[in-house]
Amino acid sequence: MRATTIHAPRDIRVSDVPEPTITAPTDAVIKVTAGCICGSDLWPYRGENDIDAGATIGHECVGVVEEVGSEVTSFKPGDFVIVPFDHCDNTCAHCRAGMQAACENLGFTVSGQAEYALVTQAEGSLVKTDGVPDASLVPSLLTLSDVMATGWHAAVAAGVREGGTAVVVGDGAVGLCGVLAAATMGAEKVIAMSRHEPRQAIARQFGATHVVAERGKEGAELVKEITGGVGGDAVLECVGNDAAMQQAFAVARPGSTVGFVGVPHGVELPIRRMFQKNIGLAGGMAPVRQYLPELLKLVQDGAINPGLVFDKTLPLDQVAEGYRAMDEREAIKVLIQP
Amino acid sequence: MRATTIHAPRDIRVSDVPEPTITAPTDAVIKVTAGCICGSDLWPYRGENDIDAGATIGHECVGVVEEVGSEVTSFKPGDFVIVPFDHCDNTCAHCRAGMQAACENLGFTVSGQAEYALVTQAEGSLVKTDGVPDASLVPSLLTLSDVMATGWHAAVAAGVREGGTAVVVGDGAVGLCGVLAAATMGAEKVIAMSRHEPRQAIARQFGATHVVAERGKEGAELVKEITGGVGGDAVLECVGNDAAMQQAFAVARPGSTVGFVGVPHGVELPIRRMFQKNIGLAGGMAPVRQYLPELLKLVQDGAINPGLVFDKTLPLDQVAEGYRAMDEREAIKVLIQP
Repeated sequence: MRATTIHAPRDIRVSDVPEPTITAPTDAVIKVTAGCICGSDLWPYRGENDIDAGATIGHECVGVVEEVGSEVTSFKPGDFVIVPFDHCDNTCAHCRAGMQAACENLGFTVSGQAEYALVTQAEGSLVKTDGVPDASLVPSLLTLSDVMATGWHAAVAAGVREGGTAVVVGDGAVGLCGVLAAATMGAEKVIAMSRHEPRQAIARQFGATHVVAERGKEGAELVKEITGGVGGDAVLECVGNDAAMQQAFAVARPGSTVGFVGVPHGVELPIRRMFQKNIGLAGGMAPVRQYLPELLKLVQDGAINPGLVFDKTLPLDQVAEGYRAMDEREAIKVLIQP
Repeated sequence: MRATTIHAPRDIRVSDVPEPTITAPTDAVIKVTAGCICGSDLWPYRGENDIDAGATIGHECVGVVEEVGSEVTSFKPGDFVIVPFDHCDNTCAHCRAGMQAACENLGFTVSGQAEYALVTQAEGSLVKTDGVPDASLVPSLLTLSDVMATGWHAAVAAGVREGGTAVVVGDGAVGLCGVLAAATMGAEKVIAMSRHEPRQAIARQFGATHVVAERGKEGAELVKEITGGVGGDAVLECVGNDAAMQQAFAVARPGSTVGFVGVPHGVELPIRRMFQKNIGLAGGMAPVRQYLPELLKLVQDGAINPGLVFDKTLPLDQVAEGYRAMDEREAIKVLIQP
C-alpha cells in the first residue's frame, strides 16, 4: 500500500509498504477514508524526536473496517469507524476507571496517513457512526481520533465548569479544539491566547468570547483584567513547550488547575508558584475512547463542528507539502486523502 | 515578652523581644496558650533556608484574645481561638473561592513559640471554641492552626474519596495527619509509607489499614499489590523533598492526583510520567481557614484526636531542645508551653 514514511528531519515520502494484516484476534484493519497531520508529528519532522528511518508516520484516521480478528464481534467489514490514536481494550482496570490512555494493552495507530491502518484492540477502541456518514461530516469525525478528544481532555483536566472562565494557551488545532470544548462545557468566558488572525477567527467561531494576542506578563495582565482580577478558573495548556506552560501558570487563578495535553518538551514546572498559589497540573495523553461516544453525538447532532480546524486538504501524494505547510504555520491542520 | 528566636543554623534561643501591639484595625494580639515546632521550621534550623538573625520563629499557636483592633467585632478579649498560620481577610475573591492561602491580605503568624502572637487579619482568620476548652483538648486544637489542616489539605488536593484507596508518603506529623484525614474522609484502604515503629503505631491509631516500610521500587510494588495492581486512587505527598515526590508518583495510579503540601525543596517533577500516566499534582499551602469550622467540630465532637502527633511537651525555656529532638527524629512534634 501507499503510506507516508519519514526518513530524516524534513524528509517525508510516500512509500510502498506492506499492508497491515491481522496477526492477533483483537486486530482490525481499516481502509483509511481520511487521515491527517498532528502537531506532534512535527517533533520528529523538526528533528526534535528520534526518527526510525523509513517508518510509517501518522496516528489519526477514520475509515471503513476491512477485516477483523476472531475476537472482534461488534464490528464487521463495511462499518465506518473512528479510530482513537491510542488503542485500548476498554476492559482493564485503567479503562474501567476512564483512563484508557493507560490501558494494559495500549497500542497506537502507526499508519494513519496511508491507505490502511491497523487497530490492535479493535473491540475496545473503535466507535462506529450511524451508517456511512456524509462526506461533509468526515473532517469533524476525523478530529475525534485525536485532536478534538485531546482538546476536550485539556478542558476536563483543567476542570472547566459551566459559568466559569477558561483560558486557552496555544492556537494550534488542539488549542482551538480546547476553545470549542470549553465553550461546549458552558464556560461563560473563554479566552483564547492567539496572535494569528485566521486562528483567532476560528477561535471565535468555536466560542471564544475574548482573544488575547499579547504574551508574557502583558498577556497575563490582560487575562487578569478580563477575569475580574483573579485569573482563569481553568487553564488549558495546548502546546507542550516551556513558554506555553509558564504562560498557563501565569494566567491561572489561585486554586485552579492547568490542564495539559501537549507532549512536554523542555518544560520546567514552576513548582514554587504551584505551591504558593495552589495551582495544580493535570492531564496528559487523552483517553480518547472515554470521550468518543459523547463527542460523536455532538458531531452527529451538529452541535459542534471541529472539522473547521482543517484549513488544507491534500491527496496522500502531496503529504510532504502538508508537513511543510504546518511546519511553517501556513496551515493549521492538514487533512490527507489516501 | 519571651519569644523563640533563631540566630544561625542550630542556634535557637529564648529572647526578650517587644510584645506585639495593635497597629492596624484588623489586628489582634493573642496570649499564646500553646505553640509548637513545625517540620518547616527545621529548614532554617538546618541552614537550608535563609535566616534573618535574631528574628522570632514559630507560626502555629492557639490562645486567648488579649486585645483587638477597631475593625475586629466578632472576637473579644478572653475568647479562646485557633490561629491559622496563614491569616486571611476571608472576604476577597480568593477567600470566597475557598483559597484563603492566596488571600489578597495574606499574613502569617511569626511568634507562635512565644508568649504573645499577632494576627494581622483577626476577623477573617480566627475561629473560637465553645468556651475555654479543657486542657486535654488543647493539643488537638493546636494542630488545627497548621499541621492537621495541612494534612487535610493534602487529602482534599489528592481527591480522597469514600471507598477509595489513599497512600500517604511521609510519616512526619503532617503525614500522620494526612492518614487521619484520609481515614476520616472514608477511604477504604489507607496505606501509610513509614519505616519508624512509633510513627507506624500512630498511623494505625489514625486509621491506616496498611503500613509499607519499604521505599523506592520495592515500596511501589507493595502498594501496587495492596491496591489490586493499579496504585493509589489518591496519593498524599507530605514531605516536600524529591525522594518523597518521586515515591508519590511511583505509587499513584494512572488518572489519579498527588496532593502535595510540603514546601518543595529540590523537587524535580517527573513530567513525562505525569503526562504518560495522567497523574496530576495539586495542593500547596493549606487554606487553613477554609477547613477550620469542619475540623474544629470533629475535634470538639471527639471524632478525631490529632493531638496524638505531639510526643513531647516542653516549656518555652527548653524550646531549643525541642528543635534538636525533632531534627534528630527523636520526637515527631513538640508542643511548647509559654
